[in-house]
Amino acid sequence: MSEPILPHIERPQDLHELSDEQLQQLAQEVREHIIDTVGEIGGHFGANLGTCELAVALHSLLDSPRDKILWDVGHQAYPHKVLTGRRDQLATIRKYGGLTPFCAIEESEHDIMGAGHASTSIGYAVGLKEAMRHGQGEDGAVVAVIGDGAMTGGVAFEAVHQAGGLGTPMVVVLNDNGMSISPNVGALSRYFNRVRLNPKLWKAREGVEDGLTKLPAGIGERFAHLGPQLKESIKAFWAPGMLWEELDWAYMGVVDGHDVHALREALREAIAAERPVVVHVSTVKGKGFAPAEDGGLEGMEKWHAAKPNSIANGAPAPSKPAPANGAAKPKPPQYTAVFGNALVEECRRDERVVGITAAMNSGTGLNILQKELPERYFDVGIAEQQAILFAAGLALQGCKPVAAIYSTFLQRAFDQIVHDVALQRLNVVFAMDRAGLVGDDGPTHHGVFDIAYLRPLPHMVLMAPRDEAQLVHMLHTALVYDDGPVALRYPRGEALGTPLPSAPQTIEIGSGEILREGDGKVALLGYGSGVAKASEAADLLAEHGIAATVADARFAKPIDAGLVAQLQAEHELLVTVEEGVLAGGFGSAVWETLSDSGIASRILRVGLPDRFVTHGAPALLHEEVGFTGAAIAERVLSAVGSRPRATA
Amino acid sequence: MSEPILPHIERPQDLHELSDEQLQQLAQEVREHIIDTVGEIGGHFGANLGTCELAVALHSLLDSPRDKILWDVGHQAYPHKVLTGRRDQLATIRKYGGLTPFCAIEESEHDIMGAGHASTSIGYAVGLKEAMRHGQGEDGAVVAVIGDGAMTGGVAFEAVHQAGGLGTPMVVVLNDNGMSISPNVGALSRYFNRVRLNPKLWKAREGVEDGLTKLPAGIGERFAHLGPQLKESIKAFWAPGMLWEELDWAYMGVVDGHDVHALREALREAIAAERPVVVHVSTVKGKGFAPAEDGGLEGMEKWHAAKPNSIANGAPAPSKPAPANGAAKPKPPQYTAVFGNALVEECRRDERVVGITAAMNSGTGLNILQKELPERYFDVGIAEQQAILFAAGLALQGCKPVAAIYSTFLQRAFDQIVHDVALQRLNVVFAMDRAGLVGDDGPTHHGVFDIAYLRPLPHMVLMAPRDEAQLVHMLHTALVYDDGPVALRYPRGEALGTPLPSAPQTIEIGSGEILREGDGKVALLGYGSGVAKASEAADLLAEHGIAATVADARFAKPIDAGLVAQLQAEHELLVTVEEGVLAGGFGSAVWETLSDSGIASRILRVGLPDRFVTHGAPALLHEEVGFTGAAIAERVLSAVGSRPRATA
Repeated sequence: MSEPILPHIERPQDLHELSDEQLQQLAQEVREHIIDTVGEIGGHFGANLGTCELAVALHSLLDSPRDKILWDVGHQAYPHKVLTGRRDQLATIRKYGGLTPFCAIEESEHDIMGAGHASTSIGYAVGLKEAMRHGQGEDGAVVAVIGDGAMTGGVAFEAVHQAGGLGTPMVVVLNDNGMSISPNVGALSRYFNRVRLNPKLWKAREGVEDGLTKLPAGIGERFAHLGPQLKESIKAFWAPGMLWEELDWAYMGVVDGHDVHALREALREAIAAERPVVVHVSTVKGKGFAPAEDGGLEGMEKWHAAKPNSIANGAPAPSKPAPANGAAKPKPPQYTAVFGNALVEECRRDERVVGITAAMNSGTGLNILQKELPERYFDVGIAEQQAILFAAGLALQGCKPVAAIYSTFLQRAFDQIVHDVALQRLNVVFAMDRAGLVGDDGPTHHGVFDIAYLRPLPHMVLMAPRDEAQLVHMLHTALVYDDGPVALRYPRGEALGTPLPSAPQTIEIGSGEILREGDGKVALLGYGSGVAKASEAADLLAEHGIAATVADARFAKPIDAGLVAQLQAEHELLVTVEEGVLAGGFGSAVWETLSDSGIASRILRVGLPDRFVTHGAPALLHEEVGFTGAAIAERVLSAVGSRPRATA
Repeated sequence: MSEPILPHIERPQDLHELSDEQLQQLAQEVREHIIDTVGEIGGHFGANLGTCELAVALHSLLDSPRDKILWDVGHQAYPHKVLTGRRDQLATIRKYGGLTPFCAIEESEHDIMGAGHASTSIGYAVGLKEAMRHGQGEDGAVVAVIGDGAMTGGVAFEAVHQAGGLGTPMVVVLNDNGMSISPNVGALSRYFNRVRLNPKLWKAREGVEDGLTKLPAGIGERFAHLGPQLKESIKAFWAPGMLWEELDWAYMGVVDGHDVHALREALREAIAAERPVVVHVSTVKGKGFAPAEDGGLEGMEKWHAAKPNSIANGAPAPSKPAPANGAAKPKPPQYTAVFGNALVEECRRDERVVGITAAMNSGTGLNILQKELPERYFDVGIAEQQAILFAAGLALQGCKPVAAIYSTFLQRAFDQIVHDVALQRLNVVFAMDRAGLVGDDGPTHHGVFDIAYLRPLPHMVLMAPRDEAQLVHMLHTALVYDDGPVALRYPRGEALGTPLPSAPQTIEIGSGEILREGDGKVALLGYGSGVAKASEAADLLAEHGIAATVADARFAKPIDAGLVAQLQAEHELLVTVEEGVLAGGFGSAVWETLSDSGIASRILRVGLPDRFVTHGAPALLHEEVGFTGAAIAERVLSAVGSRPRATA
């Protein structure tokens, strides 16, 4: 290989003078840089190896940031980061204070759009381009890069529809990982590509249809019916182009996403077309890293993200030997796994129970259900709204659906929760994993609003386990309850190591629990992961001679009004601890209960601040926002030391 | 005409023995019953006249409620109500205590699904049918009836996609008002219908494609490109069937939706097919009522809903003469019109301002913008998520988008507000009409959650005008502000009659205003429409010797902390008044401010209860929930009479 090029790339415009061959080489260098860096520090991996040539091709043609490149979700934007002045910072990605895990407006002028949730790029792009057409800001090309999975999101469809209607001159790159687009289909699409790029044919469907009938026997048939699986069906839907054309888009494809020359040729034409054009690009997830590329489905899933130090010298690093002196101390289980196993048990206990995921099979632990009881498992794709409507329909007919969706992603189904579940008082259980600060994935993924956005809804029961044993009890309680929806929040990551119960118990709805009786000075009332922090704070307060009472509210709705009134009456200071935003959160619920009983109160509310919190290890984030036992203890000491007793 | 049939229909099963001719007659009787009743009492009109034959055909074939008929939105379900035991109650529809305006589970066992928001029926249907397939509840047919407009909603797409993937045996009736499906296209679709119902052809696309090429010249072309307008494009997308088939649905159509025999034939086949089938039905909005049916677009829009006493003897009632003694006293303007006019002025003042609606052109007042400055007006269809993404994209490029969406419908874009606007700190203005209790449309349309669901979001500014003059100032303020999103809420209906300002002023962000100084006993702090109620209460309290202070908070976020502390310090009782749910609402925001300053407080919070409120005239609803000056005054009197002074 010739002289390395990447070290000389400081800005994307440096690509403009390079030849196709040089660009192809550059893409490979970007790939190797990512393998080396991410293999060492960990991070999204497979998708980024698939977009090296695409990022190179786009930046070689476009003048970013005047021209806008929008990376849907952003987990495939590492090559883009490397090419836009962040090459040497890549080693800091997802670390506290380092590069953000997705794209972020404040990180670089080349990150046009912030994201983390899927399916938003096309909608943004329509707005950007229409603003330009209305003379706002500098004119430029607008290109959205979106994966085939993200096309299942309804809002992507809404956006495609709007752009087609307006004739917005923009380009969508459909980044298809190619796993199930067979060569035959590729050949068919190339055929389409030839005929469709003739502008005279854009408005004349017949030519295209006619072309279909002239294909070699067998090919059309395979094309027509790719199979009933969800991902297959969506691929069949968006990929073959006819569908896009019905919405007044021009379709080009399938382009080899690892051939810079082919990509540049197609993209150049698409951009010049000055109309809505989709370029269907076939890429290989994990390209250039054999264990991912050649490992089939399993390899791809395994290498979607890489763990730190998992790669050395471009190959999987040998796993470390077990510690010398016998077996390692067993680590506590992940909340996700506890939930997944408990759900299987509940399904076995009650035939009405089913599990629903929105394309987060292993992230939610529903892979365990899928394996054990596949007929009780549903994956709707990246389609949270439909996950909830589907659950509502199941519940209407008597099922007990458990919609397992991360707290942050459930936001997308808010209206379905209000209008189709709560108003109808249906027995849908929402299992919200990743509640609280999730860590490395940052502000788009922190699940910090759910208490506040669900609490105002009538009929809703909200609960949160303080440990994994409570999670088992609470899931059971939610499924036994039959008077409306129940939402259950629990954090990302390792549980506390509490022994799991042999059989789950039913907890009385709206009942809290005192865990530790104090001396009447301070009561700490925790919710969910806030209970552990409250206990830590109590331990520290004990060192200062304060025996604090610690209680677990267990429910944010309905609140245990008796417990709250008792804590308030018997202590000088009431402290609430929750891993969520404070505005309208659990602490406010506690106060509302007191106020409605005519009790004036001041509450020291501990929770998350009224700003978006950055990414980084949870412990660092908790430190930053004061969500630690030490910070709580300090605030309590300051409050009881300097302030008069708060009474009714 | 023979003996009337409708008087003998007490339950839908009564239709099972009737002949096609009798059913056709029955449909006409249902229509006349609706024209007579709705013309007198007011209500949704046009869409219901279009579904008389469809409702008759469905109930003649199905055994409701074992078989499930789901009416999307429900504003076209009056014929269904008439046929399912509610014939004589139709005259009570939308009235307080009367029939609900849409479908409601608690009203009838035949209302399978509650609704009011669009695009949910298919998703529900998938859940119902999949539950049946899993042995839950009694098995039966599942049919969702959805309008072409509702198909623009992304969640409908998500549901079609899931059902196709699962092969769910269910039927979607695509209720197309036929206005722009020309006879030619109808002919084409009938051709499709013949070939597609042959099961052998379902999986063999080539046959169908081949058929296309054999059509008479010209027809295919017209079919291929129905035009760039949004509604046209979506119709072209869903209607011609090929698109459904790509998602593994069988397509039948176009069926004449006013021909009971044809409907029954098609529906019978679709139900028997035991796979996902869409039946494309062409209906005429306003069918059988000449001013609607023959009045073109204008007539249809005018007669979408009928005003009370607008029809007599099956024809428009003559309008009443003006009062004898000179001109009538001018009524206050509607908030909607004040907003629409103010937005036009803002657009004229600042070229960056644009307006966005999600298919609520006149409901939001954006019809005024469309007429005055059409290039500054965007309608994205029933697609609230895309409305907000589009706004975000526009804002990124420097525009000042105003997304005018009812409070209740904005719920559907919650994640876009969080993830794509607030997190990105973009200058998007949310103009939320219909905030508070909307009246006749009932719980699906009450806009009561917005304060609670928007307040937890960082960067968000929330304001609400107390009258129409303030609305003008606040819209201007929101557009001048350039540090993130602003949401503005205002009620449905008539404003107060306050003179409008000749030029708008900028209000300091986060500043409230004392409107009336009292004697230190009671302070009433209102937000938005709560200010007028607070003033009424103050007037009544004056009769009891209490001179209450009245203040307008103007902002729910940021709260005027100085004003709040002052009111709290200088009065025995602080009362907050807001037209929204109390959990996490404005009153809690006031308390949070005090608590964070170390002040213990009890606040008498007046707002809406923690339950869904029924439909009916707003005055009646306000009475029911205690949102009146009198009810507030009574609570204040009881609080100051019996309780000690609340102090820090």
